[in-house]
Amino acid sequence: MTSGVEPCHDIAHLAHVELLTPKLDGSLRFFVDVMGMQETARIGESVYLRGWDDYEHYSLKLSASTKPGIGHFAFRASSPAALERRAGALAATGLGMGLSAGDIGHGPAYLACDPDGHRIEIYYETEWYQPTAALKPALKNQAARYSSNGIGVRRLDHLNLLANDIRGTRAFLENAVGLRTTEMIVLDSGEEAGIWLTATNKSYDIAYTQDHTGARGRFHHLTYAVDSRELVLRAADICLEHGVPIDTGPHKHAIQQTFFLYVYEPGGNRVEVCNAGARLILAPDWKPIVWTEAERARGQAWGLKTISTFHTYGTPDIEPTAAADFGRRS
Amino acid sequence: MTSGVEPCHDIAHLAHVELLTPKLDGSLRFFVDVMGMQETARIGESVYLRGWDDYEHYSLKLSASTKPGIGHFAFRASSPAALERRAGALAATGLGMGLSAGDIGHGPAYLACDPDGHRIEIYYETEWYQPTAALKPALKNQAARYSSNGIGVRRLDHLNLLANDIRGTRAFLENAVGLRTTEMIVLDSGEEAGIWLTATNKSYDIAYTQDHTGARGRFHHLTYAVDSRELVLRAADICLEHGVPIDTGPHKHAIQQTFFLYVYEPGGNRVEVCNAGARLILAPDWKPIVWTEAERARGQAWGLKTISTFHTYGTPDIEPTAAADFGRRS
Amino acid sequence: MTSGVEPCHDIAHLAHVELLTPKLDGSLRFFVDVMGMQETARIGESVYLRGWDDYEHYSLKLSASTKPGIGHFAFRASSPAALERRAGALAATGLGMGLSAGDIGHGPAYLACDPDGHRIEIYYETEWYQPTAALKPALKNQAARYSSNGIGVRRLDHLNLLANDIRGTRAFLENAVGLRTTEMIVLDSGEEAGIWLTATNKSYDIAYTQDHTGARGRFHHLTYAVDSRELVLRAADICLEHGVPIDTGPHKHAIQQTFFLYVYEPGGNRVEVCNAGARLILAPDWKPIVWTEAERARGQAWGLKTISTFHTYGTPDIEPTAAADFGRRS
Amino acid sequence: MTSGVEPCHDIAHLAHVELLTPKLDGSLRFFVDVMGMQETARIGESVYLRGWDDYEHYSLKLSASTKPGIGHFAFRASSPAALERRAGALAATGLGMGLSAGDIGHGPAYLACDPDGHRIEIYYETEWYQPTAALKPALKNQAARYSSNGIGVRRLDHLNLLANDIRGTRAFLENAVGLRTTEMIVLDSGEEAGIWLTATNKSYDIAYTQDHTGARGRFHHLTYAVDSRELVLRAADICLEHGVPIDTGPHKHAIQQTFFLYVYEPGGNRVEVCNAGARLILAPDWKPIVWTEAERARGQAWGLKTISTFHTYGTPDIEPTAAADFGRRS
Repeated sequence: MTSGVEPCHDIAHLAHVELLTPKLDGSLRFFVDVMGMQETARIGESVYLRGWDDYEHYSLKLSASTKPGIGHFAFRASSPAALERRAGALAATGLGMGLSAGDIGHGPAYLACDPDGHRIEIYYETEWYQPTAALKPALKNQAARYSSNGIGVRRLDHLNLLANDIRGTRAFLENAVGLRTTEMIVLDSGEEAGIWLTATNKSYDIAYTQDHTGARGRFHHLTYAVDSRELVLRAADICLEHGVPIDTGPHKHAIQQTFFLYVYEPGGNRVEVCNAGARLILAPDWKPIVWTEAERARGQAWGLKTISTFHTYGTPDIEPTAAADFGRRS
Repeated sequence: MTSGVEPCHDIAHLAHVELLTPKLDGSLRFFVDVMGMQETARIGESVYLRGWDDYEHYSLKLSASTKPGIGHFAFRASSPAALERRAGALAATGLGMGLSAGDIGHGPAYLACDPDGHRIEIYYETEWYQPTAALKPALKNQAARYSSNGIGVRRLDHLNLLANDIRGTRAFLENAVGLRTTEMIVLDSGEEAGIWLTATNKSYDIAYTQDHTGARGRFHHLTYAVDSRELVLRAADICLEHGVPIDTGPHKHAIQQTFFLYVYEPGGNRVEVCNAGARLILAPDWKPIVWTEAERARGQAWGLKTISTFHTYGTPDIEPTAAADFGRRS
Repeated sequence: MTSGVEPCHDIAHLAHVELLTPKLDGSLRFFVDVMGMQETARIGESVYLRGWDDYEHYSLKLSASTKPGIGHFAFRASSPAALERRAGALAATGLGMGLSAGDIGHGPAYLACDPDGHRIEIYYETEWYQPTAALKPALKNQAARYSSNGIGVRRLDHLNLLANDIRGTRAFLENAVGLRTTEMIVLDSGEEAGIWLTATNKSYDIAYTQDHTGARGRFHHLTYAVDSRELVLRAADICLEHGVPIDTGPHKHAIQQTFFLYVYEPGGNRVEVCNAGARLILAPDWKPIVWTEAERARGQAWGLKTISTFHTYGTPDIEPTAAADFGRRS
Repeated sequence: MTSGVEPCHDIAHLAHVELLTPKLDGSLRFFVDVMGMQETARIGESVYLRGWDDYEHYSLKLSASTKPGIGHFAFRASSPAALERRAGALAATGLGMGLSAGDIGHGPAYLACDPDGHRIEIYYETEWYQPTAALKPALKNQAARYSSNGIGVRRLDHLNLLANDIRGTRAFLENAVGLRTTEMIVLDSGEEAGIWLTATNKSYDIAYTQDHTGARGRFHHLTYAVDSRELVLRAADICLEHGVPIDTGPHKHAIQQTFFLYVYEPGGNRVEVCNAGARLILAPDWKPIVWTEAERARGQAWGLKTISTFHTYGTPDIEPTAAADFGRRS
């Protein structure tokens, strides 16, 4: 790699997430009827879904499983050469797992595990979504017809995972995957407790926060974007009417200033709806914002205290007795 | 340049625009009182201004002049090496003009002219804005305190220029400057009439449309972003109350789907307020959207006909007799 | 009636409108799939519909007919005594037509014609909408579950009719029906060209504008409200995707400051979506705002010129040859 | 009173509130710089203020005092006859206090105390606000120029007081003042714990909730309206930047569905910003919504738990030691 090539340009964007659910039908109904997403394929025990402006074949793969959690997540590389570079860097970490043949909708993917055991895929070749006649958009610069069903999410925004060694995970993501850290939480002890990284001008595409339970490979939430804060409020109204358990929000995070709504889908996974893209990171030399314990103790942007489940609940849930009432406040 | 390095990564973002005005005081009052921007410096006949989340020292340089129009515009490079590569590529076109010593707020800039004669600067070294105590934001991941004065624009969004040879300009911007074309208008004759290019995940940072008058180096508009469409509507209410002439909008463009409001600042230049970033281009292999004459004849997204001044009025105005009533509809 | 009783308190609100359509199925699909309304009954060639927060059984009766236009419209009286007073006042004008037996959802109504021949009904007894289990709202202070389908209109807002003698119509509405005029257009000749009247704290519930064609009893538009301007913009996006012809907007009226979107339903009637209730008339001694010809020539609030069809197109259309392309701009 | 005259029509609307503050300068700065209100007069130790669309001379009288709290509040009657009827009804309760000479901006007022000792005034004659040239609105159907300073509140929306005997207070407000109850909280014991009443089509103009401390005549909050939920969110951003302590919100109440933000002004009084008027009560025979203890235990609309200070903090504060840190969460 020549000195002029920055690794942060090798990953184009977060491409899709595979979510595991013990209630495939219920989860599917949630993503279609409440989130307003479109089913594009169904293979075996997996259903593929997309938001109305996701340009690829899918951004969510919903797979039946005994427990909720994450199956894998995928980044799209910027070019075939970028994919090769990332494969080489991942292999060098010892966490690489070689090439897969790809899946419906995309070509060969290089597989790896992050240090906490979450499975990552990186691919370049993809199938652009081709709308059926009924879903052709009125404006040709849009992936598909705007969904006026339910919340009508625009596109996959980001993913949040739990991990044990946040500092080690950050080194892996920066150096091997090629992401940039934009914000982080550093405890008074010097320990890193949360990191937010990006491959784009969005202020983050993925976040990891500390798993206090000692479990590995757990999932915190995935997030779809709508166009404005008003539409996040509308999403809360819709969840209320559909009996979807609201975890917390709508409110504004201090970190990243995301306007958020967290709910639980029927399989037990936490799902977020946020506003898209008003805040962008344009500076090529952005220095990560470091939040201290004292600053985090102040709560969210407007003072809402972070609810305790936000720090403890992940999927799969490590306390089986709590599974029955996920979404209830402690 | 090795095959793995794509030129589109050398430019980080549109950095600032120098606007010329025959009414410096009036223009300044407009940008401060109506747009809600902050003055950061004043040198000679120039005043430097920024939106509340512009991270550099300024994004607008307002310079006294006999006529309105554009002085120059600047991109920030992604790295010193990227700046060197762009300087080399610009020099090779014969349109390069060498290095300048920089200006307040940024380091040495490579100067060039686009084929229509607009002056471009590219620099890397910059001075991050350091808010005074009174302007320190409550949240440390924000450049300065949110402006609750007037429209309160967040950041510079894009620039639109008039040019004679759109096709040649596009080749120059793609190959020498290193931008990507995301949308364009191609007439039935095959002539290109408008181009939209980006250096980021924003769907465009700069646009050029055809100058039907034969004049050269003219300016169409510059645009500041607010966070939502509701805030663009509020901007229209504020312009109405301040007697700011509204050119057209609020409405939604078919091209790029920008929700726009065009007004005239007292110096005679067209200024736009748009919504920020809901629509992003994440695909690394985005194919430019090509709009035909027939498609353009349909008007804007919801059917508003483009007003005739939009196609004819630029600064400096080539019809002096029309200067007195800019902003009036034909 | 004692001197302390003001007639303006006898009418509680605009209750429903009967719209005639030559394409009942198409019109029904529009109001259900695009407007997001709910069908509550179907009798003969009429279908009854409501918005999610309309508290009565219906606010729209859609009736098959050879031509589009209005069948009748109805006000709900404030009390049985108020209904009696209004019946007496209407009978005294010579335009009263006696009591009807009522319709599905409401009790006996006093019938009358306005001076232009539009049929008015006033009733007091009504059937409050009782949501089925599936449509029970999460919050008990709401008429039914929020509609997240299509535009999802909240409630009937107002009605606009065309008439020949605006001044005479105003006298009739103020004195016999018991409404208050809040705004009006008075031409330089002294002729009244438009009137806006209310029975509530909303700034208007009904408007009449001059019919320049000499036809009688014609309909201009009816309007449903959503909660914010952002949701009116979203309505425009939805209409665009559904191929619903947009007449004009979204934009803000100078008169009444309504944020409007006008479209055509498949039967040829004009339908508006507006924002609800931010502007209220609380003053009991509000003096009607009088707009002059010169003021009206300035266009809408932000300068949009009123399109010519807005002044000429009503239903039934008096120029049959134009019926084929309603919604097309002149 | 004849049977056809309903007392609910005698009061036109909530007109103004006199707020007491031990920090007049700080409170004034808050209402002008943060809330964006306009000072219209200053007499002795009192300053008079209004929102940009309040049609009377003022809606807030800020008076210096040793402790925070409420001085009085005022309704405007619908007519001189209505004022006479209300004076008679109030006198009959034994809580009437006779006529005052009026204050700046309005004519003679009938004075009374509610059963908890809060002072009420009712008047009819008023001085419509006449904007100075600088504050003349662009649209003549608006009271004054839109305030683009700070939050820019439109108008006084409602008032919330604490009281000991809620049931007795409700009887007084319905029968003597002439308001209608739209929602209420009834405990399992049958005791009434909160009441919301209206004089208009707004769903409430005043609310009373139980004072658990045994103190009398205390104030809970007053509320100004902005046009949309997005503008309430913007208000929270502005309060954050100005260091205004946020009590709770933004969130949506289950009761009345108000989208709220509660903050503390420098004098220690709680102030709310809410969205205006999307939800209206049009039914003349609206039956009060009764909320049970179990329903209230569910928290706000989207599940936010009501913070404990909301139930305990009022002005004047009865626990002097707590005064120092009002606004801090328990």
